[in-house]
Amino acid sequence: MRIGVLGTGMVGRAISGKLAELGHDVRVGSRTASGDTVVFADAAAHGEIVFNCTSGAASLDALGAAGDLAGKVLIDVSNPLDFSGGGPALFTDTTDSLGERIQAAFPDALVVKSLNTINCNLMVNAAAVPGDHVVFVCGNDDGAKARTRELLGEFGWTPERVIDLGDITAARGTEHYLMLWLRLMGVVGGPSFNISVAS
Amino acid sequence: MRIGVLGTGMVGRAISGKLAELGHDVRVGSRTASGDTVVFADAAAHGEIVFNCTSGAASLDALGAAGDLAGKVLIDVSNPLDFSGGGPALFTDTTDSLGERIQAAFPDALVVKSLNTINCNLMVNAAAVPGDHVVFVCGNDDGAKARTRELLGEFGWTPERVIDLGDITAARGTEHYLMLWLRLMGVVGGPSFNISVAS
Repeated sequence: MRIGVLGTGMVGRAISGKLAELGHDVRVGSRTASGDTVVFADAAAHGEIVFNCTSGAASLDALGAAGDLAGKVLIDVSNPLDFSGGGPALFTDTTDSLGERIQAAFPDALVVKSLNTINCNLMVNAAAVPGDHVVFVCGNDDGAKARTRELLGEFGWTPERVIDLGDITAARGTEHYLMLWLRLMGVVGGPSFNISVAS
Repeated sequence: MRIGVLGTGMVGRAISGKLAELGHDVRVGSRTASGDTVVFADAAAHGEIVFNCTSGAASLDALGAAGDLAGKVLIDVSNPLDFSGGGPALFTDTTDSLGERIQAAFPDALVVKSLNTINCNLMVNAAAVPGDHVVFVCGNDDGAKARTRELLGEFGWTPERVIDLGDITAARGTEHYLMLWLRLMGVVGGPSFNISVAS
């Protein structure tokens, strides 16, 4: 599948590397082209599916530079993290989310929020942590969520381990969970952990 | 043990009922006395340990009416929920928490945030949901956290299922997790669920 990955940080590298390993036709986009990296617009134009792996604060600008996203599945992995105050915080409040802001700014893109609740190594290899821990998807388009779930399956996230939280406003939940994740990281002693849901 | 429970809603009733069943000497406080319920100040004066089970928006006022809290273990179960905008949101942002506001307003109380991440029936009966799901504690006083863990143990929360997240600022994590909890409640179809942590 042709996939564009926006962002060359740890998350973008983990996702693009794994997708290429799986045999997908991947182009990685950045603000400026260099080496194997093309500009955002070229990566987005290439992809039937586009991953937003840019930093949360830069995401709207990066997507604005990505050209026409209409009809594309846009898997948003970003988090609205704000370190400007010293400690980690979010630049959204609980009536809003970055996922929603992206969907609002690009209304013809099919935004699916996913994978933003776990470390990038775990994103692309569900078995990196033992157990039946879960990932979440949310978004307004069921077809886009189904295509996202297929890719998640290739990363090891079997169907029963992918929880569909509903429309894109559920990004308020998965993004604000980061405030707990950051504390758990301190207790666990690193980012290699995840949650499961018992009921 | 002498315990004061502030609040006569579902959470206050679940906690005070269970504590009495366990043999503790419990007084339940409300704004006005009636039947077995005393006023906030009488319940707080009675307790070596005091539970704040009032609604988040009313907690600072209720605790202000509770008299001298110096040296008392104050287990804060509340959440800063705000339904004024239509949907559920929090009235704190991610640089703040209700747990911290309570500790700041009553600096001589030994505030421990706990149990606010689960439904009240599960709070007092860890076995109500199968599996090794967890609860959290955070607060600035280790002795107060140890006493809280003892009570949690009486509710069925064995030591390995109680995660100490550190000081009271970790309440930002457990309170903001509510945004995910609310969405999970929709998926599960009710409040009888909880998370565990795999690493």
